[in-house]
Order: sequence, then C-alpha cells, then structure tokens
Amino acid sequence: MVDIATRVWNHRWKIDPIVRSLIDTDFYKLLMCQSVFRNKPDTQVTFSLINRTKSVRLADLVDEGELREQLDHVRSLSLSRGESTWMRGNTFYGKRQMFSSEFMDWFENLRLPDYHLEKRDGQYELTFEGSWPEVMLWEIPALSILMELRGRAVLGTMGRFELQVLYARAMTKLWEKIEKLQPLEGLRVADFGTRRRHSFLWQDWCVQAMQEGLGDAFPGTSNCLIAKNRDLEAIGTNAHELPMVYSALAEDDAALARAPYDVLSDWHDEHDGNLRIILPDTYGTRGFLENAPDWLAGWTGIRVDSGDPATGAETAINWWKSRGEDPREKLVIFSDGLDADKIVALHEQFKGRVKASFGWGTMLTNDFKGLTPDNRLAPFSLVCKAVEANGKPTVKLSDNPNKAMGPEAEVERYKRVFGVGEQERVEVVV
Amino acid sequence: MVDIATRVWNHRWKIDPIVRSLIDTDFYKLLMCQSVFRNKPDTQVTFSLINRTKSVRLADLVDEGELREQLDHVRSLSLSRGESTWMRGNTFYGKRQMFSSEFMDWFENLRLPDYHLEKRDGQYELTFEGSWPEVMLWEIPALSILMELRGRAVLGTMGRFELQVLYARAMTKLWEKIEKLQPLEGLRVADFGTRRRHSFLWQDWCVQAMQEGLGDAFPGTSNCLIAKNRDLEAIGTNAHELPMVYSALAEDDAALARAPYDVLSDWHDEHDGNLRIILPDTYGTRGFLENAPDWLAGWTGIRVDSGDPATGAETAINWWKSRGEDPREKLVIFSDGLDADKIVALHEQFKGRVKASFGWGTMLTNDFKGLTPDNRLAPFSLVCKAVEANGKPTVKLSDNPNKAMGPEAEVERYKRVFGVGEQERVEVVV
Repeated sequence: MVDIATRVWNHRWKIDPIVRSLIDTDFYKLLMCQSVFRNKPDTQVTFSLINRTKSVRLADLVDEGELREQLDHVRSLSLSRGESTWMRGNTFYGKRQMFSSEFMDWFENLRLPDYHLEKRDGQYELTFEGSWPEVMLWEIPALSILMELRGRAVLGTMGRFELQVLYARAMTKLWEKIEKLQPLEGLRVADFGTRRRHSFLWQDWCVQAMQEGLGDAFPGTSNCLIAKNRDLEAIGTNAHELPMVYSALAEDDAALARAPYDVLSDWHDEHDGNLRIILPDTYGTRGFLENAPDWLAGWTGIRVDSGDPATGAETAINWWKSRGEDPREKLVIFSDGLDADKIVALHEQFKGRVKASFGWGTMLTNDFKGLTPDNRLAPFSLVCKAVEANGKPTVKLSDNPNKAMGPEAEVERYKRVFGVGEQERVEVVV
Repeated sequence: MVDIATRVWNHRWKIDPIVRSLIDTDFYKLLMCQSVFRNKPDTQVTFSLINRTKSVRLADLVDEGELREQLDHVRSLSLSRGESTWMRGNTFYGKRQMFSSEFMDWFENLRLPDYHLEKRDGQYELTFEGSWPEVMLWEIPALSILMELRGRAVLGTMGRFELQVLYARAMTKLWEKIEKLQPLEGLRVADFGTRRRHSFLWQDWCVQAMQEGLGDAFPGTSNCLIAKNRDLEAIGTNAHELPMVYSALAEDDAALARAPYDVLSDWHDEHDGNLRIILPDTYGTRGFLENAPDWLAGWTGIRVDSGDPATGAETAINWWKSRGEDPREKLVIFSDGLDADKIVALHEQFKGRVKASFGWGTMLTNDFKGLTPDNRLAPFSLVCKAVEANGKPTVKLSDNPNKAMGPEAEVERYKRVFGVGEQERVEVVV
C-alpha cells in the first residue's frame, strides 16, 4: 500500500507523472471515441479548458513550464501491450469485444495531437484542435493535470508532517462517508471522479476504500487504468459532447431539433443493455423526453446530470409511465454534485420506485475542503468542452442556466428550437 | 517516514520487537536506578504486574508463547555503544555527566534478570525478583510489552485497509488535540506515554507530531531511545517507587514517618534545578507537605500525580505561601490522567499563579478509544509496582483510595503513621 504523504514528500513527483497512461481516462471517453471513430471520424473540433471558478487564478498558481511538461508527457504516451490486451480481451457490461479490431488498431497507433497554451487574466487558455476522435481524448488528461498541478502547488509549501496529517484527515473523511453509505440496502455507487481528482494516487486509494468499504455496492470505476490494475469493472456510457457536436453540425433548425435523437440512434445500433442510458439534459430534459421517439422509452435508463436531481428523476419516472413503461424496471443514474448525504437522501427517496444508481465524482476523489488553512485545496469547477465543430460553435443548455455555454445568439436559437422556457438556477460548486 | 499501517500489515511484527533497546524506557527510571545503585544497591525487591482493569482478560487475549518471546528478547538486550555514548556525553537539564562512570560501567554490563510468569483467572501473574537496581528496569518494558501484545492481538484480526483507516483516524485524533493546545501561551507539555503506549512506532509518531505541532511548547519525551533518535530532551525526575521501598525498609513507625523525606534527602545530594521535583502524594499530599522540612520548600516544583489535579496544585501553592515562597517562581507538573481538554483547563486555571507543566501519558500515546468496534483497542489501567522489599510488603496510598495498594493491615498502619483521613475517590481510567 502506497504511503501517499511520504511519496508526495520524498519524490516531489519526479517519478509520478500526473497522467501515466492513455487509458488513465474515463471509460465513456473510449466508448464515445469508438462511436465517433465509426460515425464522424473526419469532424474537426476544438476543445477548450474553462475554469468556472474565476477566483482560482490558475495561471498564478501553476507554473507554465510544469504544465507544458505534463501535457508533453501525455503526448508521448501510447497504448501499451497490456492495456491493449485488456481492452481487446475484457468483458464490459457482460459483452466481449466491445471495441472493434478497426478501432483498436487505430487506437494502438494513436498519439494525442498538439495543444495551444497561453495565459490570459490569470487563467490558462488551453485548446486542442483536430479530428474529433483524437482531440476528444484530451479532455480528461487536461482536467486531471490542471487539477493536480494546482494541488501540487499547495502541497509543495507543506511540511512532511503536515502532509501526513493532511492525508490522514482526508482518509478519515472519506471513510466516514463510506460508513454512511454502508447501511443502504441495494445501493450501487461507482467512482466517476477521474477528471477532478486530487491526484492519481489519491483516486486509486479512494477506489480501494470503496472496494473494501462497500463490497458489491461498489460496481466499479470510470477510470480504465484503475479498473485494469484493480480488476474492477470499468463504468460509463456517453456524455454531452455527442449531442453538442451533432447539433453544431446540423444544417438548419429542423436538423438541429433531430440531432440529439440522431446521437442516440447511432448509439442504439452499437450498444444494448446497461449502455443504453439516455442523457436527456443537454438542451433541457422536459422537452427532450416529450419529443422523444418511442424506441427511446425502451432504453435501460436515464442519467440525471444537472438541475435538481430529485426533480430530474421524477420527470424520468413520469415520462416512463406516460410511455407505458414500468419505472421499477428502469435505471436512474445520478451523477451531478453528489456527496454521501445526498446519495443517502436520493437512495431513500427513490427506493422501490426506480432502480437508482450513483456516479460519485469530485466529492469522492477530491474532498480536501477544509483540510488546509485558506481552503487552498478545495476542489473547483473546471471543465474542458468541445466549443466548435467544423467551424461552428457548440451550445449546451442543461437543466441549470449556470451550466449553459455557447455564444448568446446561438443559446437563444437553441432555446427556441428545443422549447426551453424558464429554468431554475442551481449553484455549481464542482 | 514510517507508514505504520503498512508495517503492521506487512511484517506482522517479526522485525518489530516491542522493546528494542535498554533505553527504550522512561528517563526517570535511569535517574532513579543510579540513585538506587548508589544508595541501596543490595536491597532485594519484587516487582509485580497489576491489571487494574479486570474486564480486560489479558491471559485470554495474549498468547503466552508470544509474551515469553518478547520478555526473553528484552533479556537479550544490552546497552549499545551509541546508547552508552549518548548517556555519557549528553547534557540533561543543562548538566553534563549526569550519569557517573561507576554507574555507566555497571549499566553497560547489565542484562535484565529472569522473570516469573503464570496464568491465573484470565490474567498473567508476572513478577521480577532480585536486586533493586536491576529489577526496577523491568517495569517499563513489561508494561509496554503487555500493552502492545494486547493491541497486536486485536490488530491481527484487521484487514490491510482497516488498519490504514485506523491509523489515519488515530493521527487525525491526535492532531486535533495538538491544535487545541497550539494557542496556549507559555505551554509546556512533554510526552510521558512510554509505559502504556499503543506501540513503539506509534509513540515515535506521536512525538514527531508534538514536535511539529507544538515546537518549543514540547520540551521533550520521557522515552530515552526516542529522545536520542529524535535529538530531543529526555524528561523525568523520580517516582513513587523510591518512597515505597524506603518506607518498606523502615524498622519502626518513626523511621517510616521519616522515610519519604530520606528519599528526597538522598535526591537533594545528587540533583539540583529542574530535577528537584517533589512527588508528595505517596502517602497523602497534605500530611507530607505539612510535615516537610524547610529545605524542601526550596525545591523547584511539585508533581501532582493523583487525586483532583486542581486541588493538588492549590495545596502546593498554599504550602509554598505558608513557607514564605513565591508560587509564581515554582513549577507544578501535572502528570495524572491528562488529555487535551484537561490540559487546556489547568493551563488557564493556573496561568500567572504558578509555572505549570504537563507530562502527558496514555491519552497522548494510546488514544485508540472508539476507533474499533467494541472498543477493543482502548487503553486500560496496567501497572508494574515494587510489592516487596527485603521481604517486607510495600504500600502506596496516594491521594486517591482507588490507587492505594498493599496488604490491608499495612495500609491502615501507614494511614495512621502519615495521618491520612478520609480521601475523595477518583475513577482511574488509565
């Protein structure tokens, strides 16, 4: 077992690159990558880093040279033999050969494309341009690098002993959350915390804590490298990136209105079972479900990723009922802003009414809130999004106006096309 | 820095003997040993283990073979060259050559004498017989061996991960106590926790925590090995053992009444400054001070080791005043049943009225209370005392009848000789 505090102190990270493998990423990235590789390989996209917590001035905290070193290290990575074997030979959600030979051949030869980095107003402008299946793989490494470099800047000022107490506190804090979850019958909560983790070693520790503390209630982790190393299930389905790019590519309003369903139609052809999870909130959940074709009601579940989670789940339940489906046979995956107390509350609220499952992210793998004076290790809201596709801007609305993004005129157009009215604002913490 | 949890898990203690040096003991044992070596070398004494917490059935918890192995290991130890150099060359309380050449020559050749061990009623009867300066050195190793073996019996049932969380919690718990102490101006609190420590590695960690957390407010540790390894001051003066044996040797009541003062008279000839600390409670503090010769009022301080500590300190202050001494120039050392909250309260109460100093024992080095289900690692009240000297029983009264020991008739005789009336009972936890 790694003594994280001592490792942090002794090595000063020289032997710990932040991202140490191309599969040190979320499983859904690889699933989506294969889908994009198959359906939209030539689309040119731009991904861009966006720090929603302006008070954290990343360019003042993180040394540019170190940032470039870490990004360059990722560009030097390629899929190892063992990683390829794991992807080719593994069973995902009970299915063999989830990844096709064509995709694997391509992935084995992949190096990540170049990046563009400059400082502006105390923040980093970090963008990635190129073909969609390549560029999209930058999102998770870029986020975990920035998040961990900011952490290292703080940790570097701490003494050997302060570090040990820091990690002791963080361990105690997480374990106490796990103890809150232990009594819940039928609980299923997975690790979704790669992108905003405190560090790789720490995420790895959190996963082991979940394994030991929750047993079967912990189905696995979204992180492929950790899933591989720890013999766990890799967990995930799809994300907003797909409808955002499909929508940006739409020629007119009619095509735009169809785009989010086109995404799921492509997905429907490729996947079944637990991978058929609707992410309905990109342009407002209510409208999306009302206008959804009937075949979507046959899908396994819905992921609730913005807005008030209980409201989102109620909306899903009502929609299934209106389409003649039994919600008790359906899965709701909560994945937004979770922490132990909220998981307990949602689990209790929906027990027996729907199958609930949880993708626990930042507050699982980065809850260092309150553990240092000035709270300098608290997680913050960093994202890396597709902002352009074939020269046209992308738009996201979600069920929370605080999470909306895109040029104002386009946002208004999308709201009109998707019939989104007034939305409740929910504070975005992480 | 040692990762204690992993060490406990990996090594299963094969490379971690509980007592690893003859100076892995309290400093005052060595000071007293030299005094006894000089003044009463031929006295034959018996030391005996006494478990005051009957509910902890040591003989059921601790394997006899393992216990013998650890005790035998201590008998194989002799003073190393480096340890001898440290004792000969070091400055203790500003004084060079605290230990005489004669004593060091003797100590360098010492091996601890044999022990007698049997089981009775779920407890171990463990006794040591022989010449006082040799036998007395068994007290601290015997206690730390029993305490740690009981801990190991519990730890041996725990998983790798449970162990890591256990130590993370214990670290967090101690650090939070240290944070309570940090704001106290002029605080002085030393480690007195060798005898009932959770383990050697853990005590060593606690000492480092105190060093880093309290700085100058942490003057040092009673443990000589740790003081040596960590370049700290070794702390301590004298204990009840001296008046108990001197008193047992007294020929008649008149000699008995004199005995506790004879002890300090011998000590007065050998030591000055911070080593002139009166331990007045062996046969009742009030009577001891009332009948004390005037030269004792000139001593540096008083150690309060039983009864209500605030009452003990007030008694000391009043006594100094009655002898024309300024209490603000005097030192009160609190050393009984301390924990962070009590230290804070006593520090505040006596600020500006007397110099207060703290010898923090069990709850510094063994506060695993509440950290396991069933509380199986909670510290308990184990002592190892001189019970006989030259064939005559010893007696201790202290300021708390729950801490009294000795044959009933002798206890009554001592009470009469020392004029001890009704005493308030104080619960003995550790």
